[in-house]
Amino acid sequence: MAERSGRRRGKQRDAAPARRTDYSRLRNPFPPMDVFSADEIAAMHETALRTLEELGVKVLLPEARALFRQGGARVDDSTQMVTIGREMVEAALASAPKSILARAGARNRDVLLELGVLNFQPGAGAPHATDLERGRRPGTARDFRELTRLTQAFDVLHMLPPLVEPQDVPTHLRHYFTMEAQLTESDKLPFVFARGTPQTQDSFEMLQGFRGLSDADFAAAPHCYTIINTNSPRTLDIPMAQGLIDFARARQVAIVTPFTLMGAMAPITVAGAITLSHLEALAAITLSQLAQPGAPILYGTFTSNVDMKSGSPAFGTPGHFHASLAAGQLARHIGLPWRSAAGSAANMNDVQAANENQFGLWGCLMAGASVVIHAAGWLEGGLSVSYEKLICDIEVLNMVAELCAGAQAGADEIGFDTALSTVQPGGHFFDAPQTMARYQTEFYQPVVHSYANFRTWTERGAEDTSARATGIWKSIVEAGPGITPDAARVAAMQDFIAKRSAEGGAPPES
Amino acid sequence: MAERSGRRRGKQRDAAPARRTDYSRLRNPFPPMDVFSADEIAAMHETALRTLEELGVKVLLPEARALFRQGGARVDDSTQMVTIGREMVEAALASAPKSILARAGARNRDVLLELGVLNFQPGAGAPHATDLERGRRPGTARDFRELTRLTQAFDVLHMLPPLVEPQDVPTHLRHYFTMEAQLTESDKLPFVFARGTPQTQDSFEMLQGFRGLSDADFAAAPHCYTIINTNSPRTLDIPMAQGLIDFARARQVAIVTPFTLMGAMAPITVAGAITLSHLEALAAITLSQLAQPGAPILYGTFTSNVDMKSGSPAFGTPGHFHASLAAGQLARHIGLPWRSAAGSAANMNDVQAANENQFGLWGCLMAGASVVIHAAGWLEGGLSVSYEKLICDIEVLNMVAELCAGAQAGADEIGFDTALSTVQPGGHFFDAPQTMARYQTEFYQPVVHSYANFRTWTERGAEDTSARATGIWKSIVEAGPGITPDAARVAAMQDFIAKRSAEGGAPPES
Repeated sequence: MAERSGRRRGKQRDAAPARRTDYSRLRNPFPPMDVFSADEIAAMHETALRTLEELGVKVLLPEARALFRQGGARVDDSTQMVTIGREMVEAALASAPKSILARAGARNRDVLLELGVLNFQPGAGAPHATDLERGRRPGTARDFRELTRLTQAFDVLHMLPPLVEPQDVPTHLRHYFTMEAQLTESDKLPFVFARGTPQTQDSFEMLQGFRGLSDADFAAAPHCYTIINTNSPRTLDIPMAQGLIDFARARQVAIVTPFTLMGAMAPITVAGAITLSHLEALAAITLSQLAQPGAPILYGTFTSNVDMKSGSPAFGTPGHFHASLAAGQLARHIGLPWRSAAGSAANMNDVQAANENQFGLWGCLMAGASVVIHAAGWLEGGLSVSYEKLICDIEVLNMVAELCAGAQAGADEIGFDTALSTVQPGGHFFDAPQTMARYQTEFYQPVVHSYANFRTWTERGAEDTSARATGIWKSIVEAGPGITPDAARVAAMQDFIAKRSAEGGAPPES
Repeated sequence: MAERSGRRRGKQRDAAPARRTDYSRLRNPFPPMDVFSADEIAAMHETALRTLEELGVKVLLPEARALFRQGGARVDDSTQMVTIGREMVEAALASAPKSILARAGARNRDVLLELGVLNFQPGAGAPHATDLERGRRPGTARDFRELTRLTQAFDVLHMLPPLVEPQDVPTHLRHYFTMEAQLTESDKLPFVFARGTPQTQDSFEMLQGFRGLSDADFAAAPHCYTIINTNSPRTLDIPMAQGLIDFARARQVAIVTPFTLMGAMAPITVAGAITLSHLEALAAITLSQLAQPGAPILYGTFTSNVDMKSGSPAFGTPGHFHASLAAGQLARHIGLPWRSAAGSAANMNDVQAANENQFGLWGCLMAGASVVIHAAGWLEGGLSVSYEKLICDIEVLNMVAELCAGAQAGADEIGFDTALSTVQPGGHFFDAPQTMARYQTEFYQPVVHSYANFRTWTERGAEDTSARATGIWKSIVEAGPGITPDAARVAAMQDFIAKRSAEGGAPPES
């Protein structure tokens, strides 16, 4: 919720109300775009099922193989290969919920996950942070906390991802820090890394305690989420399989996201890469539903191409866009809510970074993604998150959110009596009755874009958008946390962390 | 047409063909998006007709008023007001062609104008040019020529606009220069400013002579185009009315574009501003068809909002996007090909410039515009054209053109036999048969985007995208004209210019 007052040409016109915006619940207004025919999508789905039946996937976790075996799959423990019949996949798709309401720290932060909604996340999982004042550096606890604070500050960002890896926190204690930072900086839906059962259980316990949830409360609705990345091609590793099982049994949200680069760990074609991504997602969804029928799970994809000259990943490309569209068609084919991703391969917050991110974003929007990850701040194909890019991309997300609200064309808006007929040829509408009633509320007010003319802008120092963004993120960071958490619950959480740390914490699984 | 060779990881694989692209004929693949209901659109059209009937438009040119009077309009010469019955508008919409093929200097440069096609133009009409080497300056003949050369170099730009105003050429001779520069630098469809009948007739004569067209040839198909801007609200000035009449009688293309800023010269609402724009376009189209039934004419709009704090124009905003959508719905309502516009209010080629331009572009794409003007290079709301921004925006247009080509998902692309089944878990697809057959042709190759990793990019000097763009435009400009025009025709054109200049040229009408 933002409140802004408009002032225009020096005149005070206090009659009109200030503009208020609320981007916390969005539905996607863009007509879904297909890249493939219905027959082609059916053939991709069929090939995915055939691949699962004939070739299978490699599952490294014995418990996961046992679940697959109990469900009717053919399992070879010596090769760790699991072949999965289509009836198992179909049963999983039938039991997976089509609509999920995840509960955050406040009701207006709750996240609805179904086809047709639109939720944004900033960039996630970067090893480095960068900003114009401090330069590029390995991510720290301070960066994690500051970036979480920035995420809290903009209601167009609906879910908390782990923006950067806090590399200065030891890995066996890192999950305590990330959960504490999320819960004390934000009331939005927190993220839990699936780095093994011990860390997951610690994280659930912290979250339950902080939110004051009984076991029954926690099981009754998801209160956090994780991302499950398969290891393409066709491998499910130990922490990811544990995560699928742990989150399913706890009825917390898992978002399955094969990360498939066309021409590298996936086929070079969009159709081939998305078929691979699809079959890996189906295998993971099946495991989730075998562990707990009805467990909240999202379909997902993140497929782009490599640059064939350098082998480097590229994002915001036509291939990335088409892959998002294809994944959206498959998500609608199986009827599940799903996530897609924007992103950029640029090395700094510049024109390439803006254009790639927005191009990738439009692919997600026209693909009908329920969640768009890496929608703001992601550089270097995910190797860094930029504070300035975060602010700049939020401008675009806000503008998309404005489009979600639509526009009206009733008699008041067409305005024959209040505008069109009141101004003669050669006149202007500055003082038309319609203008007077709306001038403070009609237009989107930007965060970082400037409409100063060239002379004014030059006199102000000719700052580029990145430089202006620095001032914006600094003022938010310096203002302190955007929430005031209950002191007793914070203290209890800190006691828990101290106790568990003294006990040795919980190293990640690998 | 571009030819590029791919090389990857040092290996030579000469078997695969080089990537060829052809962006010269595009059809819009994006599902059209509606912002208003069919009833609301009908109400806007009805209000436009009512306004023309009851309030009318001010027409400054006596000849135009005479044409309106002959056609049945009520004309008051003392007030210059013309009220136009709906039957006149309906007759004009019935006689205006729904599909126009404009002939350029080569058949692959011809421009088809109808609903469903997609043509791009760079930014037009800026008083200033800017680049990183020479800074911002009033536009010159050299800038006009260089920017025309850059427009010729990229086949995703389909029509030549007057990118900058060559302010160092006297106004009574400027049209000779702009036509000569366009014809000697490019074989794409040239633009003629409608600055009065004498300049228009000179321009037509130069074009006919250079292209070797008889009067009958010239009348048989359009060979150039102009833009007609109404003076909002509800005024048609002398040069614009002359342009409508001259182009109609010569059967050359006129694109009617009311330039309506919401909250200034147009109503503050999208619905009101587009209703005003619509009625002005209908009046101009009616005049065109009164002058010559069947004359090639395009519907058009360029509507954005002002910033209510400063009064400055803003582009690439949610209001701009919605206005494009509404105009597209009205264009489909009346069945005419139409133009829309992207653009940016930023003062330099930075993140804001990229994000605004692309945001505005997506509005045009989802609105189904047949022609998108200001699609590349436009800064400061049209006060300057940036050489670097031109290159950077072309990257986005190329990627959109790649989307127009779609993607396949046949058995070869899904690739069960040539990719999916050939790679085991833990493997990679670098050498899969499908990859080997396609690695040089599958992916878009960027113009200015870089996929270098952070270390390589830093070692190369950490150039931002704008700096790389400088090298690209310079190499194109330095390479000389992209065409080799017939020397005899150039000489004849220069003789014509010398003769007409000696006779005093042709001052613009005002």
